[in-house]
Parts: sequence; structure tokens; C-alpha cells
Amino acid sequence: MSEKKIPYKIYLEENEMPKQWYNVRADMKNKPAPLLNPETHEPMKAEELETVFCKELVKQELDDDSRYIDIPEKILGFYKMYRPAPLVRAYCLEEKLQTPAKIYYKFEGNNTSGSHKLNSAIAQAYYAKEQGLKGVTTETGAGQWGTALSMACAYLDLDCKVYMVKCSYEQKPFRREVMRTYGASVTPSPSEMTEVGRQILAAHPGTTGSLGCAISEAVEAATHMEGYRYVLGSVLNQVLLHQSIIGVEAKLALDKYGVKPDIIIGCAGGGSNLGGLISPFMGEKLRGEADYRFIAVEPASCPSMTRGVFAYDFCDTGMVCPLSKMYTLGSGFIPSSNHAGGLRYHGMNSVLSQLYHDGYMEARSVEQTSVFEAAEQFARVEGILPAPESSHAIRAAIDEALKCKETGEEKTILFGLTGTGYFDMVAYEKFHNGEMGDYIPTDEELQAGFAGLPKW
Amino acid sequence: MSEKKIPYKIYLEENEMPKQWYNVRADMKNKPAPLLNPETHEPMKAEELETVFCKELVKQELDDDSRYIDIPEKILGFYKMYRPAPLVRAYCLEEKLQTPAKIYYKFEGNNTSGSHKLNSAIAQAYYAKEQGLKGVTTETGAGQWGTALSMACAYLDLDCKVYMVKCSYEQKPFRREVMRTYGASVTPSPSEMTEVGRQILAAHPGTTGSLGCAISEAVEAATHMEGYRYVLGSVLNQVLLHQSIIGVEAKLALDKYGVKPDIIIGCAGGGSNLGGLISPFMGEKLRGEADYRFIAVEPASCPSMTRGVFAYDFCDTGMVCPLSKMYTLGSGFIPSSNHAGGLRYHGMNSVLSQLYHDGYMEARSVEQTSVFEAAEQFARVEGILPAPESSHAIRAAIDEALKCKETGEEKTILFGLTGTGYFDMVAYEKFHNGEMGDYIPTDEELQAGFAGLPKW
Repeated sequence: MSEKKIPYKIYLEENEMPKQWYNVRADMKNKPAPLLNPETHEPMKAEELETVFCKELVKQELDDDSRYIDIPEKILGFYKMYRPAPLVRAYCLEEKLQTPAKIYYKFEGNNTSGSHKLNSAIAQAYYAKEQGLKGVTTETGAGQWGTALSMACAYLDLDCKVYMVKCSYEQKPFRREVMRTYGASVTPSPSEMTEVGRQILAAHPGTTGSLGCAISEAVEAATHMEGYRYVLGSVLNQVLLHQSIIGVEAKLALDKYGVKPDIIIGCAGGGSNLGGLISPFMGEKLRGEADYRFIAVEPASCPSMTRGVFAYDFCDTGMVCPLSKMYTLGSGFIPSSNHAGGLRYHGMNSVLSQLYHDGYMEARSVEQTSVFEAAEQFARVEGILPAPESSHAIRAAIDEALKCKETGEEKTILFGLTGTGYFDMVAYEKFHNGEMGDYIPTDEELQAGFAGLPKW
Repeated sequence: MSEKKIPYKIYLEENEMPKQWYNVRADMKNKPAPLLNPETHEPMKAEELETVFCKELVKQELDDDSRYIDIPEKILGFYKMYRPAPLVRAYCLEEKLQTPAKIYYKFEGNNTSGSHKLNSAIAQAYYAKEQGLKGVTTETGAGQWGTALSMACAYLDLDCKVYMVKCSYEQKPFRREVMRTYGASVTPSPSEMTEVGRQILAAHPGTTGSLGCAISEAVEAATHMEGYRYVLGSVLNQVLLHQSIIGVEAKLALDKYGVKPDIIIGCAGGGSNLGGLISPFMGEKLRGEADYRFIAVEPASCPSMTRGVFAYDFCDTGMVCPLSKMYTLGSGFIPSSNHAGGLRYHGMNSVLSQLYHDGYMEARSVEQTSVFEAAEQFARVEGILPAPESSHAIRAAIDEALKCKETGEEKTILFGLTGTGYFDMVAYEKFHNGEMGDYIPTDEELQAGFAGLPKW
């Protein structure tokens, strides 16, 4: 087989950049289950969702049929500021591992938010602006989403209120300052500023917070202020749609060189990066046009797919959001404070949950010290200090490449490198000092979480 | 005039990437004055320099004649890891400023060291490795150079000992951790670990350090350990040579679209980024083939070109290094602790000093609050949070673009965006809280510095 020489980095030309998002729901026979009203248990209607979310985003959330959705011009302009993201051939890592595998990664960290989150932030901010709103509220975990949203809001002159998971707020003061540079207000969550925050604090004094808590607070804030809506950085189908830009670009870049991946790997918290990366490839698989192995990698300390249950559950800890059918650990689940970085959500996007349930995708969990080992190994040869979240995918990619070394198979591996770890040095320091440790929830702890699932 | 549509970002293809550095000294009629032995005041011989620096680097330091110097294959491989750096057309900034000027910037921050410093770090580490050394010592100010060197050393499996200016060591603990991630040892300077450090501490108790002090310590450490040499991130001609990759790439990218800049702007501390950016353009100017305006931008708190003298001076505070003829504030000059970030060196690279002296280049100084205003303005529209150092160039570029707005001239401005400010959030926080302030040394303070210049 003759093969074009693959460069270290493949950048699409500006005129090759995608102009449409890819909606993988169009290819699914079993559509994701609808969101349910937490009071009536009936499917949420557009009008109901529009009290919380922007109109156009609700339309995208509910659209299971349109395969391609046009990206508005203004968003395309913003994308040109920091995209295309490079598709990198990890020659140096391959050499270090002495593997016959060919490793590629789509790197989304080359922007100030430090991650892929900006792809959806600009879309959500844009539709809020189009709707004539004053501002948006949101939660942030590791801080990447909040940073991304504050950047998008600054660009569009929109107010931005961020509830930041308390342990991240404290561990990552610099992220907070970046958000402030972009004009956002940042509140540690749970806070005394919302009813739900006060309730959570009363029930769990001293809690370091969770994404679920922060979501509840941001939703309450949005619905109590005139001209505000809530936006969310992951979990929702609309976010997965916006993040499909990752997969569409990656596929175009691979296609240019006639490369077809065998294995596609992404870290999985709420699922948006993984879902975005795999969307166009999964579309081919669902239509029977190609086959790929997809691997979702999650932290052993928050194993929603590998140890959770597939059931309707609240999207937030405060139980004010709609119910979603997904793999979940229970909306009350809060990962150990020992867990560093993001990927701390109790559930999983419903599209990915359905695909996993239907056997189109694998999932595995990895422990954080092995994740940081992979991160450091990667940093030293590929020159990029990865985010802890992204390093879950690196761990799995290295493991798969090492399997190829044993078997001699020349598999092509593609993984998503979602972001950089510049604001995660506290975690790296713990790792270097041997103070990190792993925490895997016991079966009893998980059962306690499942006991809190809605029953009907 | 018909003009090809310029994309937001111009990336060279891998096969278009330069394979040679550009040595602008070859084009200079008045060569930079030679380094002098601090004891004999005679020009330093290669053998003398080789006790401190690697052999091949000494050759490059002294080579005033070769216009092109081949980049070794191993370094080209490393460059491919994080280069080519994009040349960005600042459409969003132009729109925000409503200027007819066309603004381009060469962005060097898309790598984990966060700056252009990596371009020379890998070169210097490579030649140390080739020479069979065990390791290298160095100083770092803002931390960018130390990070870059630790990355290069990790890649080549070379030991790396970094003396970090104390105020940066304390203000930027995260940079320190990045260096440790790459296996470097980091010591705050001045330290008790060297003779010169102890002397400086005795003379200036409680000093927050300076690049000059840290250089002295690193040089002493290198010359007192078997198998070590000293490497330096700026100031030297060899560094300017390695950094010419910036200018050569920028010129190739502009040439692809038939664009010729009118004004080329770089921030100036020791001069390596500025020198690297302008090298091939300056070559054309010196040969009379083209004309460009070059503007060096330095902090008002450390104004070596705009308020210094052109004289032989020590490169370091401890007066152990060779003497260089350069624009200097005196080797005892230490900028106010109020000054944030790098660009705190008392002197200037001798090539740039000579070119400035001969009228081929302009210089201006800017105050730091106006620099951070420019930084924030830039971040909000271009989506990149710039390093304080780089923001000096942004300030001048914006000022030039605003002049065009007044005059209606459609000038083309190119500036160097040397790095990102992710590790400078303490300074940004001060700026946001109105606690930053400006400090401009008085004439009396400068005279005190000049009084310390060597006399003979």
C-alpha cells in the first residue's frame, strides 16, 4: 500500500473548514429517550424548555432528524479565530512506546479556554444574543467551560454569571481570574446566593461541591432573573451537536490522507467531547458504511458508564432540571474530593448512553495515578502538558498502542486531546509529591446513589 | 491591486518549513562589538567561551559571516512537534479598532513553554547533548525560558538546573511545577547555593532578584560542576540566531500571499524575540533590497534602549560573565518589584544594540498599566490571553493602528506575539484590582546605574 507522507500536524485550510455541525441522532434507529418534566414525568415540550434555555437551542436539543445543521456565519467567524484545531500524528509518542500502532490526536487546547468547550460556548452565547437576552448563567467544574463561556460572552457583549464547583474555585484561582479578565462574575458553589445552594449546604456542610450542585444553582439564578437563560457546557444533545465540529474536522483531515482509524478514544465526563469527536464516524457505523471501535474513558472515581445504571435521573443534584435517560450514578453522587479536575458528573449524555446501551461503543474506567503517569509520559515526548481530563484518553490510547506492540498489529488510533493542564498544576504537584492516590467508590457507596434514583 | 483573500491564520506546510536559521550579522557592515574578557578586556577567544558554553554554540556566537546556518535534523524534528507557529491576520482586532491598518501577528505561544523560548532551548540542549554533557544550568525570569529548557532537556534526556528570579519563583509557583513535570530542579535566586548568590544577598538583603543575579548564579554552578555548561535564553547572538526561525517563517507566510509589512514590532527584553522576528527583514533592509520600519518596545520600568547608554558592560549582576557592548542601564540595575513579568534585563543583545545605534531600528518604552489595557483588549477580541511581555508589542501595534485610523493610511503591521499569559494571572489580578501602577525610574536612579559601568 502506498501512503502519502503524513505530516506531524494536519491543519485544514480555511476554505476546507466545516460549515455544518453533524447531528448523529439522525442516524440512530433507537433515538435517545426524551427529557421528562420532573413533576409530570411527561416529555418536556419546547415551551417548557424555553423557560430555561434559548429558543434556538431548544430546537437543536429536540431535533433528532436533521443530520446537518448550518453553523451561523458569526460563529464561523469566531471559529476562525482559534480553529481549525490541528490533527496531530503522535510520531514522538509512537517512537517512545516502540509501537507499530499509528496514533493521532485531535488537539483542542490551542485556545485561551484551554479546551474544546469554546466550540459550544460561542454557539450558545450566539443564540442567546440573537434572542435579545441580557446574559447567561452557567456552572463550571474544572473551570474550562466557564472560561470558554466568558470568552464567548465578552466577544458578543453578553453578561456572564458562573457558578464554579467549590473545590475547583479553590484549587484553580487562576482560572477564576481568566474568567474575570473576560468580564464574568464567578461564585463558588454551593453558595448562599440561591435557595438550592442554601439547601445543599445545610444538608452537606463543608461539601466541596459537584457539577450537579452548581447546575442547580445556575438554573435557579437564570429562571429568577429577567432576560437570562441557563447554558450548559456538556451533557445536553445540543452541546454534543456543537462539539461535532471536532469529529467533522478530524475526519476531513484524515480523509485528506486516506487514513481510516480503527479505534477512536475519548474521555467522558458529561460526554460532549467524546460525542463530538465520534459523531461523523458513528454516523458511518450506524449506517453500516464503515466500522470503528469507540472507547469512552472515564475516571474510576466517577464511573457512570462502567458501573452506573441506565435509567431516568435528574440532570442536577438539586433535582430542579428535567429528567434524562442515561447511565447514571444517581444525581446525589459526588466524587471523592481526592479526584482531580473535571469528569465529575454523575450521569452521561443521553445519545451516548443510548449508543453504549445498544452496543455501538465500549467504556472503560481508569485510575487517576495511572492517568497522570500517562499525562507526564505524553508531555515529555509530545511537548503538550495535557489536562487531567484529556489524559484519561491518553491513558487508553497508550494502553491500546502497547497492546499493538504485543500483537504486532498496526492499528490506527485516534483520540481526543481536549485541553491543556496549565491550570491544573496543583494536581500535578500532588502527583509529583506522591500525594495523589486513587479512590474507587465501593459497591455500597454506588448502591446508596442508585437508591436515590426517581422511582415510578 | 488584486489581493489573494488572506485567511485568519497562515500555517506553512511541513515541507515549506525552514531548514536554516538566518544570521543577520552576515548583512551588517558594522558588526556587533566582540565580547570581552572581564579581566583582560581582550576579545573573548573561543577556548575561553568554551569553559562556559557548548563548543558548537560558541562557534555560532562568534560567526559574523554565515548568512544561513543549517538546522540539525533532530532539532527540525522537535520543531515539527510544535511548529510551524501560525501567522495570524488580526481581523477581529482591526474591526474593533476600526482601523484601515492591516495587522498580522506571529504567534509563538502554542506550546507548553508558552513562548518562543523553546526555539532556542531545543537548539542549546541539542548541542549540549551532542557534546556528551550531563546537563545544563540556566536562569529564568518570568519562567518561560526555564520551562522551555526543561522541555527540551526532558526530550533529550539531559539534566537541567534552573535558577529562577525570586519574585517570579514566588509569583509563579505553577511555572515551577511545569518545570518539575519535565524533571528540572528549580532554585529561587539569589540563593545561598552559590558564592555569588551569597554575596548579592549580603549586599541587598531581601532583594526580589533580577535576571542578572540569576545568570551569575547559573554560570557559577555550571563552571563548578563536571559535565555541565551554562545556557542562556536571550541576549546572546546564538539565541537571536535560533529565534530567526520566527522571522523566516513569518516572511515565508507573508510572501505566500504577497504581503509586505510596513512596520515590524517586537517587545524587547534581552532582544531574542525581536531579533529573531526581524532578522530576515532586517537583512533585506541592510542589503538595500527593501525598507521596513522596525520598532523595539520595552517597559518604561526597564528602558535599556530608550534611556540607557551604548557601552561595554557586564552581562550579569555578579560581573562574572564577559562584557558586551550594548545599550545598558548598568549591570547593577534591578527594575522595581512593581514590574510584572519578564523584560527585566538591564542590557540588550549586541546585534540589536548596534543596529539601533546605526539607526536601522526605533525604540519606544511603554508603561505597564497601558500594556495590560492593550492585553485585555486584545484577549477579548482575538481570544488569546497574551503574556505581559508580548503585550508590550500589542500596545505599540494598537497605537500604530490607531495612528493609521487618524491618517487613513492602510499600513501593514506585523508584530510578534511571543507567548501566553496563563501563568501571569497574579499580575492580571493586580491590574483588575487597580493595584498595578507604573514605575518609571528617575534620572538619578539611572545615573546611579551608569556610575557602575566598567571604566577603562
